[in-house]
Amino acid sequence: MAILPEDAAAFTGARPATLNQVSIKDPFWSPRLEANRSQTIPFLYAQLERVGALEAFDLEHYAQHPEVVPKNNGVTPQMWWDSEVGKWIEAASASLITHPDPALERQIDDVIAHIGAAQQPDGYLNTYFTAVEPERRFTNERDWHELYSAGHLIEGAVTHHYATGKTSLTEIMERYTDFLMTVYGPGEGQRHGYPGHQEIELALIRLYRVTGKPRYLEFARYFLNQRGQQPYFFDQEARARGDDPADFWAGTYEYMQAHEPVREQGRVVGHAVRAMYMYSAMADLAAEDGDGALRAACEQLWQDLTRHSLYLTGGLGPSAHNEGMTEPYDLPNASAYAETCAAVGLVFWGRRMAALTGEAQYADVMERALYNNVLSGVSLEGDRFFYENPLASEGRHQRWAWHSCPCCPPNVARLLASLGEYVYSLSQDEVTVNLYVSGQLRAEVGGQQVTLSQESDYPWNGRIALKVETSAPGEFSLRLRVPGWCPEATLTLNGEVLPATQDKGYLTVRRLWQSGDTLHLTLAMPAERVYARPEVSQDAGLVAVQRGPVVYCAEGVDQQTDLTRLSLPRGAAMSARHRPELLGGVTVIEAAARQDGGTDWGTDLYRTRPPATQDATLTLVPYAVWAHRGTSPMRVWLRESAG
Amino acid sequence: MAILPEDAAAFTGARPATLNQVSIKDPFWSPRLEANRSQTIPFLYAQLERVGALEAFDLEHYAQHPEVVPKNNGVTPQMWWDSEVGKWIEAASASLITHPDPALERQIDDVIAHIGAAQQPDGYLNTYFTAVEPERRFTNERDWHELYSAGHLIEGAVTHHYATGKTSLTEIMERYTDFLMTVYGPGEGQRHGYPGHQEIELALIRLYRVTGKPRYLEFARYFLNQRGQQPYFFDQEARARGDDPADFWAGTYEYMQAHEPVREQGRVVGHAVRAMYMYSAMADLAAEDGDGALRAACEQLWQDLTRHSLYLTGGLGPSAHNEGMTEPYDLPNASAYAETCAAVGLVFWGRRMAALTGEAQYADVMERALYNNVLSGVSLEGDRFFYENPLASEGRHQRWAWHSCPCCPPNVARLLASLGEYVYSLSQDEVTVNLYVSGQLRAEVGGQQVTLSQESDYPWNGRIALKVETSAPGEFSLRLRVPGWCPEATLTLNGEVLPATQDKGYLTVRRLWQSGDTLHLTLAMPAERVYARPEVSQDAGLVAVQRGPVVYCAEGVDQQTDLTRLSLPRGAAMSARHRPELLGGVTVIEAAARQDGGTDWGTDLYRTRPPATQDATLTLVPYAVWAHRGTSPMRVWLRESAG
Repeated sequence: MAILPEDAAAFTGARPATLNQVSIKDPFWSPRLEANRSQTIPFLYAQLERVGALEAFDLEHYAQHPEVVPKNNGVTPQMWWDSEVGKWIEAASASLITHPDPALERQIDDVIAHIGAAQQPDGYLNTYFTAVEPERRFTNERDWHELYSAGHLIEGAVTHHYATGKTSLTEIMERYTDFLMTVYGPGEGQRHGYPGHQEIELALIRLYRVTGKPRYLEFARYFLNQRGQQPYFFDQEARARGDDPADFWAGTYEYMQAHEPVREQGRVVGHAVRAMYMYSAMADLAAEDGDGALRAACEQLWQDLTRHSLYLTGGLGPSAHNEGMTEPYDLPNASAYAETCAAVGLVFWGRRMAALTGEAQYADVMERALYNNVLSGVSLEGDRFFYENPLASEGRHQRWAWHSCPCCPPNVARLLASLGEYVYSLSQDEVTVNLYVSGQLRAEVGGQQVTLSQESDYPWNGRIALKVETSAPGEFSLRLRVPGWCPEATLTLNGEVLPATQDKGYLTVRRLWQSGDTLHLTLAMPAERVYARPEVSQDAGLVAVQRGPVVYCAEGVDQQTDLTRLSLPRGAAMSARHRPELLGGVTVIEAAARQDGGTDWGTDLYRTRPPATQDATLTLVPYAVWAHRGTSPMRVWLRESAG
Repeated sequence: MAILPEDAAAFTGARPATLNQVSIKDPFWSPRLEANRSQTIPFLYAQLERVGALEAFDLEHYAQHPEVVPKNNGVTPQMWWDSEVGKWIEAASASLITHPDPALERQIDDVIAHIGAAQQPDGYLNTYFTAVEPERRFTNERDWHELYSAGHLIEGAVTHHYATGKTSLTEIMERYTDFLMTVYGPGEGQRHGYPGHQEIELALIRLYRVTGKPRYLEFARYFLNQRGQQPYFFDQEARARGDDPADFWAGTYEYMQAHEPVREQGRVVGHAVRAMYMYSAMADLAAEDGDGALRAACEQLWQDLTRHSLYLTGGLGPSAHNEGMTEPYDLPNASAYAETCAAVGLVFWGRRMAALTGEAQYADVMERALYNNVLSGVSLEGDRFFYENPLASEGRHQRWAWHSCPCCPPNVARLLASLGEYVYSLSQDEVTVNLYVSGQLRAEVGGQQVTLSQESDYPWNGRIALKVETSAPGEFSLRLRVPGWCPEATLTLNGEVLPATQDKGYLTVRRLWQSGDTLHLTLAMPAERVYARPEVSQDAGLVAVQRGPVVYCAEGVDQQTDLTRLSLPRGAAMSARHRPELLGGVTVIEAAARQDGGTDWGTDLYRTRPPATQDATLTLVPYAVWAHRGTSPMRVWLRESAG
C-alpha cells in the first residue's frame, strides 16, 4: 500500500500547513500545549481505561458486563465509545509529531492491536454492535453512531500514520471502510443512506488524501450528495425496523442537517457539532472537486451563522434540547449550551474556509472560537473540562473530571495537539499567516525552502516580529491577517514602514525575499466595548469587553462587591494590565465602574427611589480562564450605565 | 347538632367581616366576580366531571378504570382529587350566599350525596385510599394527601353550611374528623403525626368555629404543636413502611415546614402553598388562644417573606423544583414559579394577620397579591388559568384550560367568591376598611346596626366616598387604610377636611356617627417607578412601574417596536390614561421611552459602537391582565436608561 502525504492530492486553493511543518514556542500557547501533552492525553487514556472503552475491544467484555448496557435504552453511552478511542489516538499521535515519546507510541500501538483484534472477518468494526447487539447492526443509523464511530477511528488512523509512518491502523480502517462501501451506496441492495451523526465524511476525505485512493473521496461524496434527498433514508430505515418515522424524538431531520440536499442548505440548523463536521467535509469536497455550488453553500451557511447565531465567544448552539441551533438572534447567556465540541468544529470549518477562500473573515472567527470558547473547555491544568460554555453563571457551573458524554475533552485534545495546522495556509508561492503564534514554519515556497519565524506576546499585545530565512532569495507573497477586531495595523520591513496593500483582510507583501528579512506588524489592541445588535434581546442594555481576540468576563471573585451591583458606564476609562501571577499570566482589564449602594435601603425590598451609586472598579479576566477559582458568579455581558 | 356562626367562638383581636355582611357592587370587581360565578364555577364542575373526580366517589369507579391509576407512581393525580371537589363546593357555596341559585344548590347537594355514599363504616372518607390502594391508608402522609384532602372537604362543608344552613356535609365531615382523631393524636397506638401538605389545620379551626366543638380546635392545635418535633414523625413513618427516610426526594422537611417546631420557625422555607396554609392556621390559633409565641412566629415569618422573598406582584416561591422558596433575594423573573395558589394563600394569611394585629402592612401585601398575582391566575373570561405567574415571558406562557395538577383554578374561584370577607375587619366598636371595594357592609358596630357604603373607581383612581347609615347615632371607630404605596392621603367628613390621626397605617376616625355622615378619602395615586434593592441581582438595572396597588407590565403587542429595544429613562414622564375598551377597561401607563435603533447596523451581529437610540413610547398594562392577546413578550421589570 502506498501511503501519500495527506495534502498531496489534487486540491484547489491553498492548503493548511501540516503539523510537521510547524513548531510552536509561544508564551501563551506552549503552556497550554504542554498541559495537553503531559496531563490531558494521559488523563484521557486513564479515563477511557477506567470506564471500559478500551477494554471494550476485547469482545468478551460486554458479555461479561451486562450491567453496563441498559437494554431498555436504545442509545447508550457505550454505542459511541469507539469514537472516543479514535479521538484519543488522533490526539496522542499528533502529539508524537511535535514531541516524540516512545512510551506513548507503544501505548497507541497496544490500543491499535486491540482494535485490530476486534475487527470481524467481514471487516466490520464496532464494539457495541459486535458484542452487545449484533442483531441491530445497520438498523438505526439515524440515532446510533456506527458511521460516526468509524469516522473518528479513521481520523485517528490518518494522524497515526502521519506521526509514525505506520500503517497498522490505516490498514484496519481501510478494510472497514471497504466493507462499509459494500453496505452503503447507490447499488441495488445497498443502503442508500448517510450518517445520523456526520463525521465520517471529512474522515474519508482525509483517508483519501493519505492513501490517494479515489474511492474514499467518492464515498464521502456519496454520503454528502445523498443527504437530504427524498424519500428520506431515515424514514425508510425507521419503517424497515418497524418504527413510525413520525416518532423521531427531534421531530425534524434539521436536527442532523438531513432535511434537504446539502447544496440547498442556507440556514445553520439542528445539532451544532453535526453541522460543523458536515460543513467541514463540504468545504473539503468543494476544494477537492472545485465544486462552486458546494463552496457557495458553505459561504451562505457561514454568513448565516456569523450574522445571526454566533456567540461573542465563538460558541454556537444555544439550546441544550437539541444541543444546537434555535432562532436567529437567540443568544441566551446563562443557559447558553455553546458546546465545546461545537466551537472545536467551528475551528475545523474555519480553517478549511480560510484555505479555500483566502479570506480573513474565516480566520477571524476561527481565532475567536479558539481563544475563547474552545480554551474555556479545558482547565489550565488540562484535567478538568467544560461541555457547556455559558456566558453568564451564578457560580454553580464548574469544570468536571468526566461526563456521561465525554466527547469534548478528546476533541479539545486533538485540536490543541494539532494547533500547528491552524496557523498557516500555504500555496505554491504564498504563505498566509492566519494566527499569530510564536514559532516557526518550515516549508517550500516560491521554489525555496523557507523558514518563517514568528515572535510576539500575542494575544496580550499586538506587536509581532516575523523573520524570513531562505536557502536562497525567493519570490513569494506573505499574507498577514489584519484581524477584524483591529482598528489599525502598521507594518515595517527591515525597519522601514511598508505601505502594504490589503487583500481579503490580509496585508500582502510580495517580493523577492532575502534571508534575514524582518517584518514588524503592529496591531493596535485597545480594550474595546462591544455591543450586540438590538435584535439580540438577551444582550439589550449590556456591553461586553474585548481586547484583541480575547473576550473578557467579570468574575465575582475579582470584585470588591456583588458583581450584579456593578455597571460599566458608557464613557468610562478601561485599562489593560498584565498580571503574570494570575491564572498562568493574563492581561486583565480594569474599568472605572459604578456600584449600586444598598446601605440606605433599610429593610425595604422595593422602593420608589433609585439606588444610589458610587465609584467602583470592575476587574475583567479572559473568558477562557473563568471558573478556575472556586464558585463565583460570572458575566461576559455587563450592565451598561449611561455616561 | 348545634351549628353556630363561624366567628362566634372565643376570639382575640378583630375578626374579618363575614360574607353575608358584605355586598359588592364595584366597577372593577363585579365583572370579575360575575365571570367567576357564571363561567369559572360551572367550568370547574364540568372539568371535575370530565376527569372523573366526581365519579370517583362512586367507589366502583377506580376498579373499573385501572388505567387511570399508574401503580408504579406513588403520587398520582388521583390521590388528591377529593380536595378539588372540596374547593369547588366551597366556591359554589360561597357564591350561593351572594347569588342564590337553586340549580347550583341542587348540584352541590348531589355532589354531597355522592360524598356521603363514599364514606366508610368507620367514618373514613378518601376515594383513592378506599377504592384503589386501601392497603396504603395512613402509610405515607409525608407524600400523599390524605389529611390535605380531608381539610378541603371540611372547608367546603363549613362554607356550605353558612350558605345554606344545611348540615349534610358538616355531618359527614365531623364523622370523618372524629375518626381521624382516633388515628392521629398523642395516645398510645395513635400516629403522633401531622399533615404532609398542611390545610386541615385551618379547616379544623373553621369547623370548630362553626360547630362550637372545642375538640376540633384541639385537633388543629395538636397538629401544629406536634409539627417539627423530634424524632421526626415522617422518619418514623418512612421506616414503618420499609423506606429509608434519607430517600425523601425533597431532601429536607423544610419542604413542608416540618423541620422544626412551628413557634421556632423564622424563615419562610419550602413549598410555598403549604407554608401559606400553615401560617394561616397559626394566625388563627394565635387569635383563638391568645398565643403570643405563635403570633410572634407569624410576625417574624411575615417579615422574612416581605423583606427577602416577595415578588412585586405579591407572588412568592421562585422555584419550580420545590414549588417554593430558595434563598433570600432570589427573585428570577422569567422562571418565577410564583404559583397562583401561593398568592391565594398569602391573601388568606394576610387577612388573618390584618385582623389579628390591626396593622395596615398586612392588608398592603394582601392587596398587592390580590390585584396582581392572584388575578393573573384567571382570565378575564374566567375559563383560562395560570399556575405559574412569571414576571417576564417571551410569549410562550399562556393560560390553559386544564392542568395535570389543577389546584389553582378552584383556589382562585373560592377566593373570588368570598371576596367580601377580605374587605373589612370588625370588632365591637371598630370597623377597619382593608380594601377599597365599592358596595356595602352591614354589621352591628358600637351597639348599632350600621350600613357602611363605599363608592370609588379604585384601583384606577384613589377617590373613595364612604357613607355611614345607622338606625341611631352610634360611637365607633372607622379605620381607613392608607396603603403603603400612597404618598399622600387626605380625608374630609361631610365636606370638611379632617385631621384624622394615623394608627398602624390606618386613618382612624372615632366619633358619634350620624346617619348620612359621608367621608371622602383621597389617596394620591401617581404612576411610580419602583426599584428592587441591589441584593436582588435579577432586577439590577431594571425598573418597574406601579400605580396604586396595580403593578404594570409591558407587553410586546402594545409597542411599536420589539419590546427588548425599549428602555425607560430615569427621569422621563409617565402618564395614566383610562381605556374603557381595552381588556375590560384598564388604566394604561404611557411613558416617554428610548428605543435602540437597528437601522445603521448593516449585517454585523456585534460592533464596538453602541446602538443609536431614538424617542419612543412605552405602553404599560396591568400585570393581572397580561397574556390576553395572543403570544407576546412581557416584562414587569424594564430596562432603565439614565437621564
